[in-house]
Amino acid sequence: MQIAILLYDGFTALDAVGPYEVLSRLPGAEVRFVAVEPGPKTTETHMLSLVADHAIEDVPSPEILLVPGGFGTRRLLGDEQVLGWIRRAHETSQWTTSVCTGSLLLGAAGVLNGLRATSHWVSPERLREFGAEPTLERVVEQGKVVTAAGVSSGIDMALVLVSRIAGDQVAQAIQLSIEYDPQPPFDAGSPAKAPKEIVELVRILAEQAEEAELAQPAEPGR
Amino acid sequence: MQIAILLYDGFTALDAVGPYEVLSRLPGAEVRFVAVEPGPKTTETHMLSLVADHAIEDVPSPEILLVPGGFGTRRLLGDEQVLGWIRRAHETSQWTTSVCTGSLLLGAAGVLNGLRATSHWVSPERLREFGAEPTLERVVEQGKVVTAAGVSSGIDMALVLVSRIAGDQVAQAIQLSIEYDPQPPFDAGSPAKAPKEIVELVRILAEQAEEAELAQPAEPGR
Repeated sequence: MQIAILLYDGFTALDAVGPYEVLSRLPGAEVRFVAVEPGPKTTETHMLSLVADHAIEDVPSPEILLVPGGFGTRRLLGDEQVLGWIRRAHETSQWTTSVCTGSLLLGAAGVLNGLRATSHWVSPERLREFGAEPTLERVVEQGKVVTAAGVSSGIDMALVLVSRIAGDQVAQAIQLSIEYDPQPPFDAGSPAKAPKEIVELVRILAEQAEEAELAQPAEPGR
Repeated sequence: MQIAILLYDGFTALDAVGPYEVLSRLPGAEVRFVAVEPGPKTTETHMLSLVADHAIEDVPSPEILLVPGGFGTRRLLGDEQVLGWIRRAHETSQWTTSVCTGSLLLGAAGVLNGLRATSHWVSPERLREFGAEPTLERVVEQGKVVTAAGVSSGIDMALVLVSRIAGDQVAQAIQLSIEYDPQPPFDAGSPAKAPKEIVELVRILAEQAEEAELAQPAEPGR
């Protein structure tokens, strides 16, 4: 089963690597990290690069398409090369998926029109401009289109996908192999649970960080 | 605060990227991915490479040292260049940490002698040969030495570290920013919780996968 994960400068590493760690363990999985131009793609922190080994044009019809989020999505919202690839891959995919603000790219490609969809909790409303109905659920299944909420939610989404594709036992085996028995030291992982002042702080910091990222010129090779 | 994350061929991506995603958001964090020879390092699935931008010799005294696991650890257990770097970095570090079988490298470097430590649940007993007392707890703090269990546990460990370094509010803010409100579709993430037949299956598959990995010759550049 061919799985394409889109990379671009300014993506969030865990958005991509969480689902990769689950989906790569699916029997017969062939994960391909793809980009407009192959090569190292740098995360939004500029402290880590993952390598896209393949060009998007060389992976036109993956069975699973996964679009991670990150501030860099905003630079791609009008990029017809990327959006066209998503649109065409979606025509033949078995699953079209996103993590975090990756759903903005699915939306811009027209995939979410009329569907419920999720994104990072800071900015779900942006999905409306693409005809989607925003929700803050962690994993949203709409037929073959599956969107996940912020960053770490891609792990949960990928386990749901595996259970749909290969059954509950395979999903449980993969959960066990990555020892995904979460024990966060706090119960502050959603805006409904975190202290109110922390929710406001994170919202402000996220908006500032996005502005700082977008103030930088687009890098060559996307 | 300088944070060094060791990369090598045959590491597990989420072991490194889970903690990176948390620790890189610590105010003032400077995360450096390091390797014996800088360049792309390939995960144990051979489907993804992360770039080590720095040589270990150029990052001799990070405040936080983090060693991820993966089958490739086994090839490094006698590698004095790597073990010596860990040993010397540990002398001046504020925190010396590992995820999954990364604890085997801390052990081989002599860091775990006399300490309780954890690893992936398939093989905790291997820690005994390094004088450590194995446990299956998810995050084990022994002074400045902190070990985490399999793969995904590095996220929990990193949040614990942030709370120690910068306080509970910063840790909660980071947890919220990565929306770490885990909702796995199954409760099968530890050998105590998963169905017994799945525990045995994963154990056998892990042993087979390790043998297959180690049957391959070591790659140049580690």
